[in-house]
Amino acid sequence: MGEHMRLSLDILSVDRGSDDPMHRQIYGALRRFILDGHIAPNTILPSTRSLAEDLGVGRNTVIAAYDQLLAEGFIEARAGSGTWVAHIKQDKQRATPRPPTSGGQLRLSSRGKTIVDGPQPPRSAGVINFYPGVPETASFPFSIWSTLLARNARSRDESLLSYLDFAGHPGLRATIASNISVSRGIDCTPEQVIVVTGAQAALDLVSRVLMDEGDHVWMEEPGYLGAKTAFLAAGAKLAPLKVSHRGWNLADPELPPPRLIYVTPSCQWPYGTIMRIEERLQLLDIAQRHAAWIIEDDFDGEYRFRGRPVPALRGLDDANHVVYIGSFGKTLLPALRIGYLIVPHELVESFDKAVSITGQFAPLILQATVNDFIKQGYFATHLKRMRRLYARRQANFVKLCREHLGEWVTVSENDSGMQLLARFTQPLNDFDVVAAANKEGLDVQAVSINYHSTTPEHGLLLGYTAMDDRQILRAVLALRAAFMRLAKD
Amino acid sequence: MGEHMRLSLDILSVDRGSDDPMHRQIYGALRRFILDGHIAPNTILPSTRSLAEDLGVGRNTVIAAYDQLLAEGFIEARAGSGTWVAHIKQDKQRATPRPPTSGGQLRLSSRGKTIVDGPQPPRSAGVINFYPGVPETASFPFSIWSTLLARNARSRDESLLSYLDFAGHPGLRATIASNISVSRGIDCTPEQVIVVTGAQAALDLVSRVLMDEGDHVWMEEPGYLGAKTAFLAAGAKLAPLKVSHRGWNLADPELPPPRLIYVTPSCQWPYGTIMRIEERLQLLDIAQRHAAWIIEDDFDGEYRFRGRPVPALRGLDDANHVVYIGSFGKTLLPALRIGYLIVPHELVESFDKAVSITGQFAPLILQATVNDFIKQGYFATHLKRMRRLYARRQANFVKLCREHLGEWVTVSENDSGMQLLARFTQPLNDFDVVAAANKEGLDVQAVSINYHSTTPEHGLLLGYTAMDDRQILRAVLALRAAFMRLAKD
Repeated sequence: MGEHMRLSLDILSVDRGSDDPMHRQIYGALRRFILDGHIAPNTILPSTRSLAEDLGVGRNTVIAAYDQLLAEGFIEARAGSGTWVAHIKQDKQRATPRPPTSGGQLRLSSRGKTIVDGPQPPRSAGVINFYPGVPETASFPFSIWSTLLARNARSRDESLLSYLDFAGHPGLRATIASNISVSRGIDCTPEQVIVVTGAQAALDLVSRVLMDEGDHVWMEEPGYLGAKTAFLAAGAKLAPLKVSHRGWNLADPELPPPRLIYVTPSCQWPYGTIMRIEERLQLLDIAQRHAAWIIEDDFDGEYRFRGRPVPALRGLDDANHVVYIGSFGKTLLPALRIGYLIVPHELVESFDKAVSITGQFAPLILQATVNDFIKQGYFATHLKRMRRLYARRQANFVKLCREHLGEWVTVSENDSGMQLLARFTQPLNDFDVVAAANKEGLDVQAVSINYHSTTPEHGLLLGYTAMDDRQILRAVLALRAAFMRLAKD
Repeated sequence: MGEHMRLSLDILSVDRGSDDPMHRQIYGALRRFILDGHIAPNTILPSTRSLAEDLGVGRNTVIAAYDQLLAEGFIEARAGSGTWVAHIKQDKQRATPRPPTSGGQLRLSSRGKTIVDGPQPPRSAGVINFYPGVPETASFPFSIWSTLLARNARSRDESLLSYLDFAGHPGLRATIASNISVSRGIDCTPEQVIVVTGAQAALDLVSRVLMDEGDHVWMEEPGYLGAKTAFLAAGAKLAPLKVSHRGWNLADPELPPPRLIYVTPSCQWPYGTIMRIEERLQLLDIAQRHAAWIIEDDFDGEYRFRGRPVPALRGLDDANHVVYIGSFGKTLLPALRIGYLIVPHELVESFDKAVSITGQFAPLILQATVNDFIKQGYFATHLKRMRRLYARRQANFVKLCREHLGEWVTVSENDSGMQLLARFTQPLNDFDVVAAANKEGLDVQAVSINYHSTTPEHGLLLGYTAMDDRQILRAVLALRAAFMRLAKD
């Protein structure tokens, strides 16, 4: 069958002091020798008994090593004929390391490039954070949350351990369906609620399931960058649906027939405007006329400080074209990664199936815990506290901006939302301001990143909700220092 | 400006017993009247004072209702001119409910249809579960897990609350990178580990980023249905890479040049075969020649009962074309929804960005807890116990199959994996067997669902890991009853 060979102790030795078991060392060394071509194919290996003697180890140790090599195809054996090295066809070149493959060969797909090349907000991590859309976490009832979560984590309840509830935990879906009727005026069944790993996943899922490459999407201009990125990743052609403080320019003759229309009617991002009832009805008519879907992103519709939250567009009659996106990221914690869609009846089955393929489902124990948190009243209490807190913080923040930043920006109160637009009173480039702010250790968003095709307004989108009064003062003063630094440069 | 109108108590009344606050009731009634056209545009509303008197409520109550209507654009107001109903343009038809939109109008996109129309394993929920790939949960150390999770859930550590670590918790990424060198022979840096919401999400992400619509994907035949579904959802053209007990038919001349090659080399699904070293080297050469990516799905490579787990394909030299997919679903709990990719250096940034857009990221507190679980040694202990337990269960299961099912199937031991293939000894259709099993309350997988383009072998893919000895016996007897039922029909 081949040539006998004797493995000398010089090349194959075992280190008794090593953590690696001896059979593993023998296996590893032989594997390496065979791969590198130091032991030729058809070489007959010593018997387990003789190798064991040579190495001064037990025979079982060698048997274990040979078994593993056998299982992986490095050696072959037949009863009575001994054990030999398998004939492993490989290129001569393989023995010498190859030059690293060029970028041109190892490439992303075109779709991959589209996904990856999309615009993204810069991820800086300033010492002080003025970033929009970040909720207060200090007041979050961590100990209650932890207790509820621990209880579910201990539970051996099959409903928390299964694979099957792709579209969400049945209890949470029912709770969302019943609560959203009161909080957002939406009537839906639990089945219409599809739980996913957050609003971003919802946007991604919707754009994959409801539009094709090259389809026109009306995107608010200015509008939320994360939505834009999801649509672009799905190959959308974006058409700017212009928004100003006065409202949505739905009658713009330059808009092509849409396949999808993305809006934030409860609190427009970044302006904070509420969509008026007339515009809502107009929008539904447009969607119906074009058989288009409306994506209603209700990212912080729960935060209205005067009066009650404005009912969702989805809650109107004839709103069957609307897919609603909600999230617990801003009402509880962003890191929870739980958001949801409310889809029309006829899409329930499709979304259930789609989410089982895309894997954008939130872990059941977190879903069950959010459900407990809501049902035991903690959610309502927390939300009420946060509304009061944010209203107070906003008033204080606006006052401080007027006191310290009046020279550079105007900031107006808003009844809704977790961030305010600071408009420049001087011709400044907001990227310059952001750069200067970063130097002061301040993380802040240029509002111009939310413009996609028209000349941007420059300003800052300032999140004030995550900071206490002292932190807000510090941040405002840091921003003041940034403006002064900029004036000097 | 318009006609004064007096709202009579007949149409607008408040219910003091209701849970709904009175201002909310007034708002809701007026909103509805305006939407339904019962109050015409330009109608001047009574002053807040007079309406409050009429209704017998406080003036602030009416003011709150009017404010909300004002914010939503239902009414308008000017200082000194009173409050009137806004002119809301809407179709005449809107007053009467429309016929439900036809399916042709409200449709999925073509891509959505492709995603949704893909094949899926039937989701039955039998009383007894023989489903493959389901780990034992009874032995899971729930109380340790719960304690670790509760600690992280209480933590106000910013690293667990942030938005930014899209590609995974830095600690877990480092731990995976250092452990996988020992357990699977893979050398990688923490950055190369991309944590996602499970293996399915990993497959979906890979097929979106690394292939385009119409690209050829070599798919194991038979092979894992979830992978097939992900590739089809991304528009792949599947080419069958035929697998038998003898191995992978890599030299099949009918295979087109691939863009992606999907393999399960540690434990082929459904056969349980280990890919031999010669095939591994051949596969790497093919990938290099075609500049194709290899997707190594290592779904249960940790479960090898004799010897040690076989090193991953990714661990070989020159394996830079390999994207490795691992998961904690089978080693810990499926419901955790934590899996990971190990990607080549040059793809790190792309995957980090892609996952921030697709939202397939696992919640940080779960990731941190898995990290604690591993670092404190519980993972290794659990895995070792499970290996021993599954080895014992497999032996018992094979024995019981021989005793009670020998007439219909042959089941052979396998050193690897969490399921065994039961081959029919008679010409039976496995869907018939599944249907008969379902009637006995038994959940079982037809192996033919893993065939995509060739004539399937019929048989059952039986998961034996989630059941104790008594449950296995019961399931085997139920299966026996199913076969007997089938013989009678």
